[in-house]
Amino acid sequence: MTGKMNVLWIMADQLRWDYLSCFGARRIETPNLDWLASRGMRFNKTYVQSPICGPSRMSFYTGRYVRSHGSTWNGFPLRVGEPTLGEHLRESNVRCALVGKTHMTPDREGMQRLGIEPESIIGALISECGFEAVVRDDGTNHSDYHNRCSEDYDAYLRSHSMDGDNPWEEWANTGINQNGEMCSGWLLENSALAARVPREHSETAWLTTRGIEFIEAQNTDHPGEPWLCHLSYIKPHWPYLAPAPYNDMYSANDLPPVNRSDDELTTDHPLMQRWIGARIAKSFSRDEVRNIVAPVYMGLIKELDDQMGRLFKYLESTGRLDDTMVVFCSDHGDNMGDHWMGEKDLFFDCSARIPLIVYDPRESADVSRGEVCNELVEGIDLAPTFMEFFGGPAKPHIIEGRSLQPLLHRHPGATESWRNYCISEYDYSTREARRKVGVDQQDARMVMVFDGRWKYVHVESMRPMLFDLLNDPNELNDLGNDSNFQKEIDRLAACHFQWTRQHHSRITKSAAAVEAMTDAKEPPGIIIGYKDLEELEADGLLSRLPEHTVR
Amino acid sequence: MTGKMNVLWIMADQLRWDYLSCFGARRIETPNLDWLASRGMRFNKTYVQSPICGPSRMSFYTGRYVRSHGSTWNGFPLRVGEPTLGEHLRESNVRCALVGKTHMTPDREGMQRLGIEPESIIGALISECGFEAVVRDDGTNHSDYHNRCSEDYDAYLRSHSMDGDNPWEEWANTGINQNGEMCSGWLLENSALAARVPREHSETAWLTTRGIEFIEAQNTDHPGEPWLCHLSYIKPHWPYLAPAPYNDMYSANDLPPVNRSDDELTTDHPLMQRWIGARIAKSFSRDEVRNIVAPVYMGLIKELDDQMGRLFKYLESTGRLDDTMVVFCSDHGDNMGDHWMGEKDLFFDCSARIPLIVYDPRESADVSRGEVCNELVEGIDLAPTFMEFFGGPAKPHIIEGRSLQPLLHRHPGATESWRNYCISEYDYSTREARRKVGVDQQDARMVMVFDGRWKYVHVESMRPMLFDLLNDPNELNDLGNDSNFQKEIDRLAACHFQWTRQHHSRITKSAAAVEAMTDAKEPPGIIIGYKDLEELEADGLLSRLPEHTVR
Repeated sequence: MTGKMNVLWIMADQLRWDYLSCFGARRIETPNLDWLASRGMRFNKTYVQSPICGPSRMSFYTGRYVRSHGSTWNGFPLRVGEPTLGEHLRESNVRCALVGKTHMTPDREGMQRLGIEPESIIGALISECGFEAVVRDDGTNHSDYHNRCSEDYDAYLRSHSMDGDNPWEEWANTGINQNGEMCSGWLLENSALAARVPREHSETAWLTTRGIEFIEAQNTDHPGEPWLCHLSYIKPHWPYLAPAPYNDMYSANDLPPVNRSDDELTTDHPLMQRWIGARIAKSFSRDEVRNIVAPVYMGLIKELDDQMGRLFKYLESTGRLDDTMVVFCSDHGDNMGDHWMGEKDLFFDCSARIPLIVYDPRESADVSRGEVCNELVEGIDLAPTFMEFFGGPAKPHIIEGRSLQPLLHRHPGATESWRNYCISEYDYSTREARRKVGVDQQDARMVMVFDGRWKYVHVESMRPMLFDLLNDPNELNDLGNDSNFQKEIDRLAACHFQWTRQHHSRITKSAAAVEAMTDAKEPPGIIIGYKDLEELEADGLLSRLPEHTVR
Repeated sequence: MTGKMNVLWIMADQLRWDYLSCFGARRIETPNLDWLASRGMRFNKTYVQSPICGPSRMSFYTGRYVRSHGSTWNGFPLRVGEPTLGEHLRESNVRCALVGKTHMTPDREGMQRLGIEPESIIGALISECGFEAVVRDDGTNHSDYHNRCSEDYDAYLRSHSMDGDNPWEEWANTGINQNGEMCSGWLLENSALAARVPREHSETAWLTTRGIEFIEAQNTDHPGEPWLCHLSYIKPHWPYLAPAPYNDMYSANDLPPVNRSDDELTTDHPLMQRWIGARIAKSFSRDEVRNIVAPVYMGLIKELDDQMGRLFKYLESTGRLDDTMVVFCSDHGDNMGDHWMGEKDLFFDCSARIPLIVYDPRESADVSRGEVCNELVEGIDLAPTFMEFFGGPAKPHIIEGRSLQPLLHRHPGATESWRNYCISEYDYSTREARRKVGVDQQDARMVMVFDGRWKYVHVESMRPMLFDLLNDPNELNDLGNDSNFQKEIDRLAACHFQWTRQHHSRITKSAAAVEAMTDAKEPPGIIIGYKDLEELEADGLLSRLPEHTVR
């Protein structure tokens, strides 16, 4: 392969793995994403490193586990100096641009400590976790979010005569009810109303346009410059409000059956008790809520797929499919009433598992087109995949994920030497549940270890959870308290321990530098542990002695 | 206590805990350090976080374990953005000055990535791990050590007519033998020669003078400014060369018996085999070497104690003992032939245990003067002790050590709630032994867990080591392969696992900020999981709804 190469990395927000038809969804068709899967490889067992936007994304953007980058919850700034994908790619002279959402919170205290102006070129890159922010939009609009601005979208809406103090709130997040009243998209019962914004101006359509504009401008204005564009959608994340016709394209009859059991309600696990007792969980556990919201969730996905059609047609018609790796994924799922829960808490598949499709334009990937990969893949694998795609060094002293290239190109032995378990983390220190179970801030943490069959959840200061996905694919039977499964628990706890012990902060010396230090044996100018000249001579080190001394 | 307070933090390099008379040494008298101990508290069980200069010191200077700050070996730069004691103290308007050694290697790549000029004010502080470098001297002189300059000491020697291309090497590290030849201090057989530099101009005397000058200038020029001075000596670290009369003040007859057993030579532990087979270990295992070197090592300690006398007299005569906390410690020990080893590898007490004396001038510390504390103390405890002393916030989200103040002031319950085990780490990836045992770079690591009786050493990919210091205080019997002790091994492995699981990278949100987020329940401008107005009203959140919508 010669010539300039690019990456278009598309991310949806809060999209479950099982709501795309190529991943087996029944009552929703997503032909455009299915088409991408038919041209690329569909990764069927992909898990995010935390089922929450911020920490999950910081793992995607650094190639490192949450315990490593330390941004364990939404709004926890990514520390200054944490190396990002953008920084790695810029070393290879690749432009790394953002169009959409990251959920990044800048580390303003850290920048101040280091004398970095947030408005400087480097300060701006740090503030956007390494991306050059062509468009930054997190799908909310509140003055407290300093850099999660939707000014861009607001200006766009205004330019199409959708005015007001807060156009995002008033047009994209407001519907009109049968009485002609303005109703907030924040309330779930309003979800089925059509958003005031027409489909061609919705956030999803607008971001698609901005993405196309970026690619167009890049190829016109900087034809020789390779680029990565992170086109990062807000939907189908809440507020669950879709423009017509997507708001009533599906009904409760189209929903997959809710995945929950009465036994789950009588769990003896203190944390699970608190979780399903939380207001949000109770809300989504009611059929009257799910039957309104889930069809709109599907509508938002359908809208996204339609926009993918527009985008892919653009790529095809401009020749970009010949030189551009196209990746589609989400940052986590949505419980949507399953397991009596809403939102994306805990590690059930509806939450921690994501769809991932990778289209690699190179001939070397022809061997895997349309195929399905069942290896355990992690969100942190994308950063090293992109680094390798652009020919950059691998940096295993920093990057904890693994490049997918051996799987995409079906290298011999690639699957045999792949990882045996994947990890996801959850810091619930800011959650009400933490107070209710009486756990200290520092101990409010869980770690999932999943080996492809057994899903083990370490819960600090409580018993673990355990699910056997072979015999219980719906994850309804928590075996964590069943002594018959102690062997599996011990085995997975040992994996957890193995993972916690790994290097992950030793990021300032590359593997090559460590080898060079080993070769050198001792630092320059230093002679340790030699008794006399004879010993020094025997090791051929006489020349190390200072010239003025006897030898 | 009112008025300005200061800290004088004295550190020796490679000083064993058991070579001071107040710690039980027999044939060496250290009356000045003994005097400090009689005025302060002597901490009898203090362990460093790695028995190697660089990582140990980075733990001292950050208050964080090695796995957290990531500078796991000498020459591994401390990453830009890693918060340091100096930064914490400057927030409390305390000047944090360095006089002497740190073994810091600046993270030049990281600074470049962040656009920080190493020569800028902040760049210089980062390059010196947070200290304002009044004097930086690492006791070596080679052009490869960019900021480990001994230019200061070289200039000083020249000003006293000790000239040459490399005055440190030619005067401080050179002796004259009986034939009148110049002999290098790097060769162990030369250790008993007197250094060419006279005692009043040795590195130890010179650093003492520079420390006194700093205090003098600070109190004259900035009388209202509190300060911490890290007076950090190079000796008794190698090269083992002392000025007269310290070079022949002690003889082989004064040495404590070497602590080793023949059984150690037949160990079945692959790593221990490689260690005692290494050239340096073999060198120090020979009596002819130890009998030359160890008496000089004692002489260097005696010289240091004499200089302590000069320093303490200065403090007393100027009233500084009334307003200055004086701390004495070292960064690790020296095996000095014990266990058939040289240098400071592994975690035997001669290596990982250090002397620590804390003199707290406040009345509240009067209850502990002259007393001995047997709690398990770690090097990382000093940073939070100093932060508390100066009235700064505790920052448990960053600092992993514990302030010693409750022990110094004998707070009720302080010992009962103290830690149950301490940790030390060792990364041998740059060591020849790593290649010989055939371990991957990433796996070349050990962790010590010591609970006050049992010393457990986790060795990645090998069996652990275990010593029972109650029945085997000399640590001669490794029980790590004895199934009778599996219970202890399992118990200590569980402690290790507990420690590895802890938060240590989540440094951008304080405990108070986490509590505030928990109180807020949801971020501003966001309403999650409410079905309708009624539910919102029940929680008193109607006002959260945008004004333009129906309510």
